Amino acid sequence: MHINIGNELPGIIGLFAYNPLTAKVLNDLAETLLRDESSPLSRGERELMAAFVSQQNNCTFCYKSHKAFAAVYLGNDLVEDILVNRQFKKLSPKMSSLFFIASVVANKGATLNENDIKAAKDDGATDKEIHDTVLISAAFCMYNRYVSGLGVANPDLTDEQYEDIARKITTTGYNHIP
Amino acid sequence: MHINIGNELPGIIGLFAYNPLTAKVLNDLAETLLRDESSPLSRGERELMAAFVSQQNNCTFCYKSHKAFAAVYLGNDLVEDILVNRQFKKLSPKMSSLFFIASVVANKGATLNENDIKAAKDDGATDKEIHDTVLISAAFCMYNRYVSGLGVANPDLTDEQYEDIARKITTTGYNHIP
Repeated sequence: MHINIGNELPGIIGLFAYNPLTAKVLNDLAETLLRDESSPLSRGERELMAAFVSQQNNCTFCYKSHKAFAAVYLGNDLVEDILVNRQFKKLSPKMSSLFFIASVVANKGATLNENDIKAAKDDGATDKEIHDTVLISAAFCMYNRYVSGLGVANPDLTDEQYEDIARKITTTGYNHIP
Repeated sequence: MHINIGNELPGIIGLFAYNPLTAKVLNDLAETLLRDESSPLSRGERELMAAFVSQQNNCTFCYKSHKAFAAVYLGNDLVEDILVNRQFKKLSPKMSSLFFIASVVANKGATLNENDIKAAKDDGATDKEIHDTVLISAAFCMYNRYVSGLGVANPDLTDEQYEDIARKITTTGYNHIP
């Protein structure tokens, strides 16, 4: 860890405890993007997307956390098949196109082009689904950089500890951490 | 523009009008990061940093907007010297180190290392200043990707139009757009 945050809490949770003011708005954003019922994407699909982007950005805590959150909604087998075994064919064609969009945005947002969008629309994606996908991917480029940029160490949590966090988040939401 | 947002408002302002729910939390975040008085960095320094990161991410609307906002606080000459003429020597050594940190985080967050942090601390940067710098840079990696990823066209605004937006934002803050 590059700065002294005065606590030993894991990952971004330690940064939230260090600075409650920014924690509040960052958690409000996560709550809106990942849990608000107005999105046409399910909570499980959005958490899976957050884990997928965090994995590409090499942010281990964010990846393992959101992977565990996705598993609550979608089951562990499917989540493992997508994120670990790269069985993208287990996604619907529409979700597969949206994951591709999320990947492009994470890696270089401006290179997403009309053909990528047309492919997703041909697979049934709506404008709002594309909007939410781009914003979720962009937001995780922020969360991941916040954690990695400050040199937050990868905490040595067990799978059970990630599952404990997942139970809490998927029950009460993001507005109650740390 | 890759999706139909039903309005012709420029840059991210059009996306805010399209989806007020995410606009609210994204503006709360900008208000907290760029204007809250608890940051040890001045509003001008933070807006200049936001413009600098947006410039590196090739997000023209964000760049020109935050450049105009920074100019309200710091004067147009200094802002031009830094962002256009690359006269980084006109920044204090501390701010110059923090701008370097912002640049590394924008380009590849995880590669920021102990030596970069030590250099900034040797130049007088505090832990909170480093925290705020990393989070501002990370946040603009989100805002810039949100705009660029959705293919928002660069609006053909005049300098005077950017100055009009700047007068509004620097007076009433981010919670009143669009």
